[in-house]
Amino acid sequence: MKKALQITALLGAVALLATPVAAKKIKWKLAETWPSTLTPLASPPAKVAALVSEMTNGEFVIKVEGKEKHKAPLGILDMVKGGQYKMGHSGSYYWKGKDINTVWFTSMPFGMTPSEQYSWFYYGNGMKYMAEVYDKFGIYNFPGGNTGNQMGGWFRKEINSVDDLKGLKMRIPGLAGEVMAKLGVNVTNIPGGELYTSLDRGTIDALEWVGPGMDIKMGFHKVAPYYYTGWHEPASEMQFMVNKKAFDKLPKNYQTILVTAMKAAAMDMYIENFATSVDAWEKMKTDFPNIKVKSYPKPVLKAMKSAADDVYAKYADANPKFKEIHADYMGYMKKARAWSMMMQYGYLDLNKKLAE
Amino acid sequence: MKKALQITALLGAVALLATPVAAKKIKWKLAETWPSTLTPLASPPAKVAALVSEMTNGEFVIKVEGKEKHKAPLGILDMVKGGQYKMGHSGSYYWKGKDINTVWFTSMPFGMTPSEQYSWFYYGNGMKYMAEVYDKFGIYNFPGGNTGNQMGGWFRKEINSVDDLKGLKMRIPGLAGEVMAKLGVNVTNIPGGELYTSLDRGTIDALEWVGPGMDIKMGFHKVAPYYYTGWHEPASEMQFMVNKKAFDKLPKNYQTILVTAMKAAAMDMYIENFATSVDAWEKMKTDFPNIKVKSYPKPVLKAMKSAADDVYAKYADANPKFKEIHADYMGYMKKARAWSMMMQYGYLDLNKKLAE
Repeated sequence: MKKALQITALLGAVALLATPVAAKKIKWKLAETWPSTLTPLASPPAKVAALVSEMTNGEFVIKVEGKEKHKAPLGILDMVKGGQYKMGHSGSYYWKGKDINTVWFTSMPFGMTPSEQYSWFYYGNGMKYMAEVYDKFGIYNFPGGNTGNQMGGWFRKEINSVDDLKGLKMRIPGLAGEVMAKLGVNVTNIPGGELYTSLDRGTIDALEWVGPGMDIKMGFHKVAPYYYTGWHEPASEMQFMVNKKAFDKLPKNYQTILVTAMKAAAMDMYIENFATSVDAWEKMKTDFPNIKVKSYPKPVLKAMKSAADDVYAKYADANPKFKEIHADYMGYMKKARAWSMMMQYGYLDLNKKLAE
Repeated sequence: MKKALQITALLGAVALLATPVAAKKIKWKLAETWPSTLTPLASPPAKVAALVSEMTNGEFVIKVEGKEKHKAPLGILDMVKGGQYKMGHSGSYYWKGKDINTVWFTSMPFGMTPSEQYSWFYYGNGMKYMAEVYDKFGIYNFPGGNTGNQMGGWFRKEINSVDDLKGLKMRIPGLAGEVMAKLGVNVTNIPGGELYTSLDRGTIDALEWVGPGMDIKMGFHKVAPYYYTGWHEPASEMQFMVNKKAFDKLPKNYQTILVTAMKAAAMDMYIENFATSVDAWEKMKTDFPNIKVKSYPKPVLKAMKSAADDVYAKYADANPKFKEIHADYMGYMKKARAWSMMMQYGYLDLNKKLAE
């Protein structure tokens, strides 16, 4: 009787102690829109996979599959929603055909800078809206790395007036594409891998991609040497999507591990893209002196700004949630910009003037 | 006999299964320079403690002690070196009396912006130099959250010329204090908690603290309403210090958990300080219309820049490692600034001109 009690007690202890060890190894797959070699866009998923595995001693493993494997760069949302992949890494504005309000979480024409946008995400209503918009897909959405202000794109010829834009065939995604369309541009979206060939063969006359860190190695400057400054994607944030059911089933500590890894990886991508752009920008001057860096003339920018306002107004009229987020976003940007002008612009301007 | 074997087998199973559970719980203490309520400076240590505990299911616990507890706000480095505290959170430039080269990891007068500095840390030689400089203290040093460009400070009276600075008693730490001293300012360093009283009683005539998010709640504007724009700390990075022996003894997964938590918490602090500054900056206009935001006249800035160059040259002459880091830092800043001007300044400038 005494012995039986001891055994029962031991069995109880075994059951209790076994829990953490016996927990089944968790194996997830993540699909990304990019080829797995396309850094820095492909860096955050690779980093999250490495960090999560290290932090869990290999008990929670995420296998990253690039578009070379799954062949569906613009099918990521559906695949995460369906659960074939528990996670995705992409750009929220690619889903504007499913819900126009996904565009708010990448970057907006004439919109917020990275500091302003992160501030809106975490201390304004950004993350709240993000959760609302992605709820219907059964997906948790998280910031996934920022490119900073993107360059306006590569053109074969100089743009001196709005007329020069008319009839131009250009690759430019998101709302910015709609802005350009209003100015008479024939807008197309072409996957990254086919861009150089399309530009070289004249399928398109112009394109925007990211910035010097990513653009130069694509070779666009060889066929389209006019490199315009940016207005259309001042703070493009990539996205991590996580299937809700899968996330909710994770042990609490793994949830925190995953969320923390995503945040650290997002920050790293911003720095990586900044650093590679710094080097590419410097190299441009010496190695590619044929590149002509240009800003659009003010009348062209004014036309773009006015067209952007029209595009915003069109969607706000048609979609009450768009109207709500638009008002919130613009209100936040206005007050945040006043501080950006003091804190960031002011400092760079002071140093610029001292150097003059 | 059979029963005895079963028990032995069970005891064996218990021993095997118990290992992860029986692993000794790790309890560390972290000392911070700030009162534990002084957000956002006190936010990163609190966040790291919470994240690490969550990620390890409470098996690795860090107890954060603010200066109200340990009473040694400027003794953190020694306490982490000695091992009384396994971690610290402070500002690297507070240790310039121990090694002048600690100043490179906070922020430099007329130096890099946050993006430039993070880029130098992670993709230039910044982290390498950080490791070298902190090695002799037996400490691993990590970025611990950035304030962004700080405001130049609160003054009782307007500064119209270099002469107006002469004889002024001002609280301004780091190399910036030495720059001000060269222009005739009587420089003192006073702990944060005593600043308001010192200013109110006339012990000092002026001070710099951080920016609107932190300054307004300190009440400085009540006695010194001239609020000058910044030049002296464009990207102040806080620091996490970790005792090397303690870190090296951690299981590998806990090392990754700690480093990842520190990185995520550092990013969060930058955003928190930006967001609180956005709100405070807006509130200033309505609630505190007596505050007069000013920029130093160009001749004053030129004198500051020239004095800063002299301070850099003085230390470079005296200290070969300072000379090496100085050359590397300035070289990196030069190329990074070209990209900042295009990417950040260019975008803000474009929008500024469109609004005119």
